[in-house]
Amino acid sequence: METARSGQITDEVRSVAADESVEPEMLMSLLAAGKAVIMGNSGAERRRVALGPGLRTKVNANMGTSSDASSLDEELAKLDAAVEAGADAVMDLSTGGDLVAILDAVLERSSVPVGTVPIYEAAVTARRDGRGMVRMTGDDMLGAVRRHAEAGVDFVTVHAGVTREVAEHCRRSRRLADVVSRGGAFLMEWMSYNDAENPFYERYDELMDILAEHDVAISLGDGLRPGALADANDAAQIGELVIISELVTRARERNVQSIVEGPGHVPLHLVASSVELEKSLTDGAPFYVLGPLVTDVAPGYDHVGAAIGGAVAAMAGADFLCYVTPAEHLRLPDEDDVREGVYTLRVAAHAADVANDVPGARAWDNELSEARKHLEWERVLSMSLDPRKARTFRQESTPADEKLCTMCGEFCALRKMSDVREREDG
Amino acid sequence: METARSGQITDEVRSVAADESVEPEMLMSLLAAGKAVIMGNSGAERRRVALGPGLRTKVNANMGTSSDASSLDEELAKLDAAVEAGADAVMDLSTGGDLVAILDAVLERSSVPVGTVPIYEAAVTARRDGRGMVRMTGDDMLGAVRRHAEAGVDFVTVHAGVTREVAEHCRRSRRLADVVSRGGAFLMEWMSYNDAENPFYERYDELMDILAEHDVAISLGDGLRPGALADANDAAQIGELVIISELVTRARERNVQSIVEGPGHVPLHLVASSVELEKSLTDGAPFYVLGPLVTDVAPGYDHVGAAIGGAVAAMAGADFLCYVTPAEHLRLPDEDDVREGVYTLRVAAHAADVANDVPGARAWDNELSEARKHLEWERVLSMSLDPRKARTFRQESTPADEKLCTMCGEFCALRKMSDVREREDG
Repeated sequence: METARSGQITDEVRSVAADESVEPEMLMSLLAAGKAVIMGNSGAERRRVALGPGLRTKVNANMGTSSDASSLDEELAKLDAAVEAGADAVMDLSTGGDLVAILDAVLERSSVPVGTVPIYEAAVTARRDGRGMVRMTGDDMLGAVRRHAEAGVDFVTVHAGVTREVAEHCRRSRRLADVVSRGGAFLMEWMSYNDAENPFYERYDELMDILAEHDVAISLGDGLRPGALADANDAAQIGELVIISELVTRARERNVQSIVEGPGHVPLHLVASSVELEKSLTDGAPFYVLGPLVTDVAPGYDHVGAAIGGAVAAMAGADFLCYVTPAEHLRLPDEDDVREGVYTLRVAAHAADVANDVPGARAWDNELSEARKHLEWERVLSMSLDPRKARTFRQESTPADEKLCTMCGEFCALRKMSDVREREDG
Repeated sequence: METARSGQITDEVRSVAADESVEPEMLMSLLAAGKAVIMGNSGAERRRVALGPGLRTKVNANMGTSSDASSLDEELAKLDAAVEAGADAVMDLSTGGDLVAILDAVLERSSVPVGTVPIYEAAVTARRDGRGMVRMTGDDMLGAVRRHAEAGVDFVTVHAGVTREVAEHCRRSRRLADVVSRGGAFLMEWMSYNDAENPFYERYDELMDILAEHDVAISLGDGLRPGALADANDAAQIGELVIISELVTRARERNVQSIVEGPGHVPLHLVASSVELEKSLTDGAPFYVLGPLVTDVAPGYDHVGAAIGGAVAAMAGADFLCYVTPAEHLRLPDEDDVREGVYTLRVAAHAADVANDVPGARAWDNELSEARKHLEWERVLSMSLDPRKARTFRQESTPADEKLCTMCGEFCALRKMSDVREREDG
C-alpha cells in the first residue's frame, strides 16, 4: 500500500493488472486509496490476487478441521479440490488436530492466497492447556496473529469491531439467532467473562504494526453478522459496521490493506443496499461477503441461496464471495462439497462480472454460445466452467446422432434453424 | 375469468385464496383483470394453482421424452419426483414414443396442473406420417390444441407471437444463437417454407374459443427467447413481446386466462427490467420465466444460473419460474435431475417471496431459525425445504456431541452464546 501511494508501479502490480486485463495505473490508484487490495504475504511465493472494483469477482473456499474431524489428508484433498475448481483464495479455519502442522501444510501446498482466523488458534490453545478460552490473554490473541503473519498467511480475519458497545447493542436487540460467528462468540464470551474490552480493538495499532511488517491484509470480521434473516440489518450488525469503518480508516493510515466482511443471512431485497452501505461507510473498501444466504430454510441447498445472494451482492459492488457448500448448517464439508461450493459461487461471481462488464467476462459466454450454436460439442465441453461435470452429464446419455443431445433429439432447434437459414440464404 | 368478472366468488376461488392466505375478494379482482390466473381445466380434478402478484411464486418442472429416450416409466418417475419435491405444476414436453399414451398417463397421475406444447404433437405426427413437419396444416396445429384441451390439460404453450414480421426482425438481427425454442423453430421453418403466416396468429380467435370452452389457460410462448446472453433484449425478442401483449388483450376480451412466457438467457443486470417491461406491456399478465439463465458458460450448473435469475425475476414481479435442471444443455434430465431442479428453483422462489413479503413466507425462515438456535435438530431437519437431503447430510458425519454438528464441533457459536446469555441473565 505504501508503495502504491508512492506512485511506483511495481512488477507485482503490473502482473496482477495483466491478469485482470486492466491498466496498472488504474489498479495502483485503487490500491493507494484502499479501494483495492492485493492479497500476498511479503514472504510468500503464492499467486497474488487482487480484490476491487472493475476486477473479477473472487471466490474464497473455507476449509479446516473441527474437533469432530481433523484429518490432514482430507484437508489437503479439499484444498486441491478448491484450487482445481478455480477458488481464488482459501481459508484454513481449523479448530481440530495439530493446528500448526495443518496450517503449515496448507501454506506449503496452496497456489492461491491463504487466509486464517488467528483467534481460533489462540482459543484452542487456551482450552487445550487447561486454562479455558476465557482466560486467553490479549497477548495470546495478538501472538496468534503474529505467528500466522510470520508463517506466511496472506490475509487474516480479525473481529476487531466486536466492541463492548456493539455487544451491548446485540444483547438489547434480542436477536433470533444471537451470534453465529465463532470468532464473534469467542470475543463476546471473553468480554463478558473478563468485563474487559476486545483486545484487538484496544491494541489495534499494535495489530497494524504486525500486519504491515509482513504485508498481510486485514479482513475485518463481522462477528455479529446475522445468522437468520430476522436479524439482518439490526443495530448489532450495523453498529459493528460503523466501528469497522473507523478501523478501515486507521488501517489505511498505517498502510495496512483492509477488507471488510459482510453478512450472512440477508433477505434478497436488502442485499444490494447492504453492499452500498458498506461502500459508503468505508469509502469503498473491498467487501467480502459470506453468501449472503437469502433464506434460512434450505439446508442442503445453502450453496444455491448463497449463489443468489452472492450474485446480487457482487453486481452491487461486493468484491469477494465466500463460498457456502451444500453441507452448510449440517456437517463439515467434504471434498465433493468443496468442489460443488466453489463452482456454484463461481457461477454467481461470473454472472455479476457479466452484469458489471468486467473485462473478458462476456467474451467467454459469447464464445461458448457460438460453439453451442454450431453444435461443436468438444469446444462447448472444454470451455465450460466445469468441463469434467459437463462431460460426465453428456456421456451419461448418448444421442442417436452424435451432433445432437438427448434433450431434444431430432427436434433440435439449433439444427433446424441452421437448415432454415441455409435454405433462405442459399 | 367470466365468473370472476361477474363478481361471484366461487368455491374454487375461495379455496385457492385460502391456500395462499389472501382474501378471496383480492384474488377475484386480480383474476377479473387478468393479473392473476388459476390453472385448472374445467374437466380435471387436479389441485388448482394460482399465479399472480401477492401470491406465492410457483415453480414448474418440465419433463417429457425425446426421440432418444422415450420410456413411460421414466416419465412417471420424473413426475413423482417433481411433485414430491414440491413442483406447483409440470409440463409434458414429450416428442418421443407414444405421445398420446404418455400425456394420458401424466394427466391421470399428476396431482398438480399439467401443461403441454401442443404443436409438438402436431409436428411429430406430421413427421411420422411421412408428410414432414413443414406440411403440417393450421388444422393440425389447432387440432392438437383441441385434443389436449379435451384430454384435460390445464395450460398450453402456444407460440402465437411468432409472426412473419417478428421472424423478419429475427433474421435481420443476426443473432448469436438464432432460435432455441423448439416450438419457435418449428414455426419459423413452417412460415419460411410455406411462405405463410403463423396459423396460431391468424386463427387466434378460433384458438381462444377452444381454450375458453375447457377453461384452459394460454401460456403465450416466447418462440424467439434469447438462447445466449448476447441475444437478450434484441428486436426479435421485444418485437415478439409486443405482439404477445396484443394477444393478451384479445385473450382477456374472450375470457381466456393468459400467461406470458419470458426468457431465457439474460444478463443479470437486465433481469429485473425485463420483468417490468412485460408487466407494463401486458397490464400485469402473469409472467412465466425460464430461469432466466444469467450465464451461458455453466452447463452442469445451469440450475444455479436459473436460480439466480429466477430469484431476481420473481422479486421484480415474475409469478412462475420454470425450473432448469443440472442436465440442461447436455442431455434429457433424469429423476435425480428433476428433483434437484425443483428444489433449487424453490430456493429462488422462496427467497423472492420473503423479499416481497408474501403471506407466510418469512414465518417459515423464522421458525426454522428458532429451532436452529436451540439446536433442536429434529425440528430443523423436518422443517427443511428438502428434509431427506438435509437428513442425509447430517447423518453422513456424526458429531461427538449429538446436539452439535461436525462443522464447528465443540466450538459451536450457538452453544457458546447460550451459555453466555444464561450466565448474564441468571
